[in-house]
Amino acid sequence: MARDIKQLISQMTLEEKAGMCSGLDFWHLKGVERLGIPSIMVTDGPHGLRKQAQSADHLGLHDSVPATCFPSAAGIASSWDRDLIEKMGQALGEECQAEDVAVLLGPGANIKRSPLCGRNFEYFSEDPYLSSQLAASHIRGVQSQGVGTSLKHFAVNNQEHRRMSVDAVVDERTLREIYLASFEGAVKEAQPWTVMCSYNQVNGEYASENEMLLTDILKKQWGHEGFVVSDWGAVNERAEGLKAGLELEMPSSSGVGDAKIVEAVRSGELEEEVLDRAVERVLNVIFLAVDNKKENAAYDQNEHHELARVVARESMVLLKNEDAILPLQKDSRIAVIGQFAQKPRYQGGGSSHIKPTRLDHIYDELVRAAGASASVTYAAGYDLNKDEATSESLQEAADLAAAADTAVLFLGLPDNYESEGYDRTHLRLPDSQLKLLEAVTAVQSHVVVVLSNGSAVEMPWLGDVKGVLEAYLGGQALGGAIADLLFGVVSPSGKLAETFPQKLAHTPAHLNFPGEMDRVEYKEGLFVGYRYYDAKEIEPLFPFGYGLSYTEFEYSNLQVDRKQLNDSDKLKVSVTVTNTGSVTGKEIVQIYVNDVQSTVIRPQKELKGFAKVELQPGESRTVEVTLDRRAFAYYDTDLQEWHVESGEFFILVGKSSKEIVLSKSVTVNAPAKPERPVTRNSLVGDLLHEGRLSEEKRKHVMDYVQSSMGLFSASEDDEDGNPEMMEAMMRYMPLRAVIAFAPDSEGEKKLQSLISTLNS
Amino acid sequence: MARDIKQLISQMTLEEKAGMCSGLDFWHLKGVERLGIPSIMVTDGPHGLRKQAQSADHLGLHDSVPATCFPSAAGIASSWDRDLIEKMGQALGEECQAEDVAVLLGPGANIKRSPLCGRNFEYFSEDPYLSSQLAASHIRGVQSQGVGTSLKHFAVNNQEHRRMSVDAVVDERTLREIYLASFEGAVKEAQPWTVMCSYNQVNGEYASENEMLLTDILKKQWGHEGFVVSDWGAVNERAEGLKAGLELEMPSSSGVGDAKIVEAVRSGELEEEVLDRAVERVLNVIFLAVDNKKENAAYDQNEHHELARVVARESMVLLKNEDAILPLQKDSRIAVIGQFAQKPRYQGGGSSHIKPTRLDHIYDELVRAAGASASVTYAAGYDLNKDEATSESLQEAADLAAAADTAVLFLGLPDNYESEGYDRTHLRLPDSQLKLLEAVTAVQSHVVVVLSNGSAVEMPWLGDVKGVLEAYLGGQALGGAIADLLFGVVSPSGKLAETFPQKLAHTPAHLNFPGEMDRVEYKEGLFVGYRYYDAKEIEPLFPFGYGLSYTEFEYSNLQVDRKQLNDSDKLKVSVTVTNTGSVTGKEIVQIYVNDVQSTVIRPQKELKGFAKVELQPGESRTVEVTLDRRAFAYYDTDLQEWHVESGEFFILVGKSSKEIVLSKSVTVNAPAKPERPVTRNSLVGDLLHEGRLSEEKRKHVMDYVQSSMGLFSASEDDEDGNPEMMEAMMRYMPLRAVIAFAPDSEGEKKLQSLISTLNS
Repeated sequence: MARDIKQLISQMTLEEKAGMCSGLDFWHLKGVERLGIPSIMVTDGPHGLRKQAQSADHLGLHDSVPATCFPSAAGIASSWDRDLIEKMGQALGEECQAEDVAVLLGPGANIKRSPLCGRNFEYFSEDPYLSSQLAASHIRGVQSQGVGTSLKHFAVNNQEHRRMSVDAVVDERTLREIYLASFEGAVKEAQPWTVMCSYNQVNGEYASENEMLLTDILKKQWGHEGFVVSDWGAVNERAEGLKAGLELEMPSSSGVGDAKIVEAVRSGELEEEVLDRAVERVLNVIFLAVDNKKENAAYDQNEHHELARVVARESMVLLKNEDAILPLQKDSRIAVIGQFAQKPRYQGGGSSHIKPTRLDHIYDELVRAAGASASVTYAAGYDLNKDEATSESLQEAADLAAAADTAVLFLGLPDNYESEGYDRTHLRLPDSQLKLLEAVTAVQSHVVVVLSNGSAVEMPWLGDVKGVLEAYLGGQALGGAIADLLFGVVSPSGKLAETFPQKLAHTPAHLNFPGEMDRVEYKEGLFVGYRYYDAKEIEPLFPFGYGLSYTEFEYSNLQVDRKQLNDSDKLKVSVTVTNTGSVTGKEIVQIYVNDVQSTVIRPQKELKGFAKVELQPGESRTVEVTLDRRAFAYYDTDLQEWHVESGEFFILVGKSSKEIVLSKSVTVNAPAKPERPVTRNSLVGDLLHEGRLSEEKRKHVMDYVQSSMGLFSASEDDEDGNPEMMEAMMRYMPLRAVIAFAPDSEGEKKLQSLISTLNS
Repeated sequence: MARDIKQLISQMTLEEKAGMCSGLDFWHLKGVERLGIPSIMVTDGPHGLRKQAQSADHLGLHDSVPATCFPSAAGIASSWDRDLIEKMGQALGEECQAEDVAVLLGPGANIKRSPLCGRNFEYFSEDPYLSSQLAASHIRGVQSQGVGTSLKHFAVNNQEHRRMSVDAVVDERTLREIYLASFEGAVKEAQPWTVMCSYNQVNGEYASENEMLLTDILKKQWGHEGFVVSDWGAVNERAEGLKAGLELEMPSSSGVGDAKIVEAVRSGELEEEVLDRAVERVLNVIFLAVDNKKENAAYDQNEHHELARVVARESMVLLKNEDAILPLQKDSRIAVIGQFAQKPRYQGGGSSHIKPTRLDHIYDELVRAAGASASVTYAAGYDLNKDEATSESLQEAADLAAAADTAVLFLGLPDNYESEGYDRTHLRLPDSQLKLLEAVTAVQSHVVVVLSNGSAVEMPWLGDVKGVLEAYLGGQALGGAIADLLFGVVSPSGKLAETFPQKLAHTPAHLNFPGEMDRVEYKEGLFVGYRYYDAKEIEPLFPFGYGLSYTEFEYSNLQVDRKQLNDSDKLKVSVTVTNTGSVTGKEIVQIYVNDVQSTVIRPQKELKGFAKVELQPGESRTVEVTLDRRAFAYYDTDLQEWHVESGEFFILVGKSSKEIVLSKSVTVNAPAKPERPVTRNSLVGDLLHEGRLSEEKRKHVMDYVQSSMGLFSASEDDEDGNPEMMEAMMRYMPLRAVIAFAPDSEGEKKLQSLISTLNS
């Protein structure tokens, strides 16, 4: 419906306009009844709807309305499946419509800087391209139902420790290429109705009042059309925030924030136009919600539960399968061990914690799947509420395990080990579980571990078990999904969206996480995730992009549609994948790009494309991925823009970031950076570098340095002479220093004359 | 002789004064004949005298006057022997007196940030304490003879790549604790007559015109009394340099620099007083040299050669000695392989390259030491001037090796692999040598490798040989020293002053070395050398402080003279060392300090004391080391001074940085940092932190947050509740955010009132 929003704003009082810039209560925006502006509702997400039943309540974990609990983002990301995530988003959107929710607060696109971050389960990946692609899919799905999203937490919110005060200090290039890129792709591709700013400071300014982030980058450079909402309680100085581009303060500040805005306008500190533009953005979203509201919307809980099961299956990663211990034999003797099999951990703690419409019981699902003549026993092994395991419970578990053909151990992180609000301090499983694992593996060599956790754990015990399935936090249908995978109803197809390190000390941010008091320096720079393990040649436990299947895939026929391209061209890359195994499976094909030589520090390779393909046994399919300029570019801080350096690049096709199976070289031509003017401190070697100067100017340089050249050639009778050294000394010498080595009282004049000649 | 320098200056013309601030030629300062100011000479060092025979010549490698070539600093440092280095310094001083040299340009105290730095052979260590102690010993020795030194290259000159232009970007704490600390100790303890500024920029300013470095820190904070001389050609803008504290420009600028100073004074841009103070510092040193000049000084070349042999013996490090392959059996069949045995590499390239008075022939020394009935054969194996080994030379070497009881392989880096002027790009030995090693180890299992190199190399072949002696660049008497060690005339006693990594990618600076164009960021921060390997839990090939002996040492009876101390107290640490083996040997005892808990990021341990002790078989001695405040302190960038945090520290006694054999805990009490005022962004958890506030103020905080406490306690009937999360949310909450969670239109007023109460 066409509306004249500007006209509407002109009818509003200053107080009404200020009022539009903060919440009515914890979950509602304000409306203006006399002008027909309704109050819309937002609720927490992102993998399900956390609509509080009691409207007066807020962050407390009181009952919320039941909603389908999908796997959390750490799991979903392992599916690498844009379509599936979009489908899940549609389902979430339907539930929002049914519950009269206008905006779902998610997805989260923060980068997994350290596996310790307590909220990693809500984020997708350590890689900005993968993260942005999946966030975009999520947003597209939800918004296709006429419901908004809130891409969060913008930006550089990569830890829970002191999250409301810590200053994340990141260099500009890392900010652009890693931390912002994850948001950038999602904003540009999917245009989320809202973006939620984070609590923390970024390079000295609160994200909630960081004009560079909220206005220059988000609105102007990326073209975000919606509004920015504060994370709940993130506002520092309200008027500053508004000026910087923070339109909506949440929750209600009981009028305090509104009054500050009114005062700032009255005192002239804040231009009313700024307020008007903010209100316009807020109203645009409100009316988008109004116009897209579906009356009497409803959804089928069973259907959504089934979708949650499909999503969960694709979200789990088979990490180890020695001697093909999986899939489990039907009708065999299976000992199911670990309290998680009865009390599953299927979602994370905090604002994303929702009340599921139903909940799969893992043990029951296993019994169902195991077949009528199977023997499936169960022992708790540990108590989730206790750190110590009792010898009785260990003995019971060991006895069951010994009596079975296979022991399936359900291990992972209890709720209080990872949560919104605080970070982990180590990567170990609880001691009680480690004791259990020891007791079971002592008596049974056929052991499969199923892990429930939201982020990487160390596995010093990996050699003691034959199988590991990383189930992440699998949502309400995790039980069925685990049963499907363990018994081979479907083959596992997830691949890790994050590196699993051998130990905490190996992680990229280890030396600087979580920082000192309210300052955390991102000194690892660009080297986040696999970029770090690659460059440091540190062997991860499991690399980024890794995951096993019950079938085998072969790659062949890597093609690029051109060997030479301009940076403005698109490059089509295709590769054929064949299922050479005996069951149907899905493969995730990963395309990385490597810049062979660069004047700036670059990671060895970066993910720039991926595709997921399902193949019957014996079937081949060719997948195609298109790379654009960005696939070759880095962010140039001099130019303040993305820049491609001409030269050779390798297109790498990998089964994982460590297992590159095919590669092809292409040459990209791009405009060069403008040369800087010659100064007294320009280096001789730089000036003489191929292609920099005309032949004539080059000769001027040579003449100038000639006078001191005696220096730089060893006398012939000196057998210790090292011509490399002499050559290097000249190469690295500033023009002005030539004078020091070639005594000449006219030296300074000659230097000045040379500089002006070279710059002419 | 007492002189009135100020009076002398008052008699000088402006031009004469400006003239004192630059060289007469390449190696002399200017004198003023009419005022009785002589021209003194300086020459390159630091491990021997490089006095050019032709006074007109400069950096070219033309003949210089013969002088004793001692091992270069990388080797000397491995002795960890303050007294021996001082003795070597005395010998150097004697040679300077004999050659009429007033100032020897050295020692170098730059930190070994990366093993790739081409000039590492001239530097002592990766550890600032060790480096500063050894530099101080060197300075004390030389200056005891009435000859000056020039502590170089000040500062943060840790690479040769673009060394005249690169900007070393280092955070302040790292600068103070690592890069400057290495100079600080030497300046404070040994007061070098001169300090040489480096070519590079430090945090955006050329070292040669960096007032913070040259004046604020060096002169004011550390009390340096001498003058600062530019590295040859390091002056950028002469007047700026003088203002910043650079007294002497070298070499001569043919009057250009002098004219700029005169002009700057005339134009009023430079206060004449600044020039006067600079001249005063220069004259002080000139007359120090004059007053200490020993007429007709001479030295005994044979005596110095013998000293060079002793120094070399202590400078070499036994890295591997499997099955006690060393010492070699006398009168056995030994194959000496490798051209280094005939053409030894005994010093590095560049300004430190000197002409020795004699040169040991390694092969001859081995023949002499092997005994009359030994069979000592020789094959070159490789040609130092070629990268490829011929199959004939490999075959010849293998044949000799096969026919011998033991093969001793002389390997290392040829001159063009490491030198002043450029950096290495990898840590491998030349291919020809690796081929040779392969050929020899294929036919002979008793292989000892003797390495000649100035910095760490990778040893992927370590498992193929039984012995490795790191001989570094052993000076002119290296042959005798190697023979002494290989045949057990003395036991090896050196320990590494730098970490040997397994591979280049593991080194601390790997991600950021040598930087991008003219910018290199020291992002590894404090984590240089063993501080990095400790924290990252990366296994080095050989750790800092490591070295084997032909005997064994046991440590016992670690004592501290107090368990509790104030930070102003000194702590005496003593430990008993016993030689439990069968030959005389020396042991280097290392004392590290570990701060158990800190609010700032600190390395796991830092070297704070060491002692070297010689023991007969069965002998025990107790060594004592005194730790002062600095041993417990870090540099606090808020306070702009060294600060000790009260609490527990461990005193660790190690045979190496990895092999800590004894430890004791002490508690240090120190004044706390002043608390910052409470603001709206102070965190609730910080305010409630033990000891921060009075009971009454604490209660005010509790009352203030009470209103929102409902939020932070899960309802009792919610079994998913996570009290840790609620507690963390409150702990990390800024005061101003409490309002957002506790709706109250008076919230802002209450907040302001609370803040003023807390600050009252």
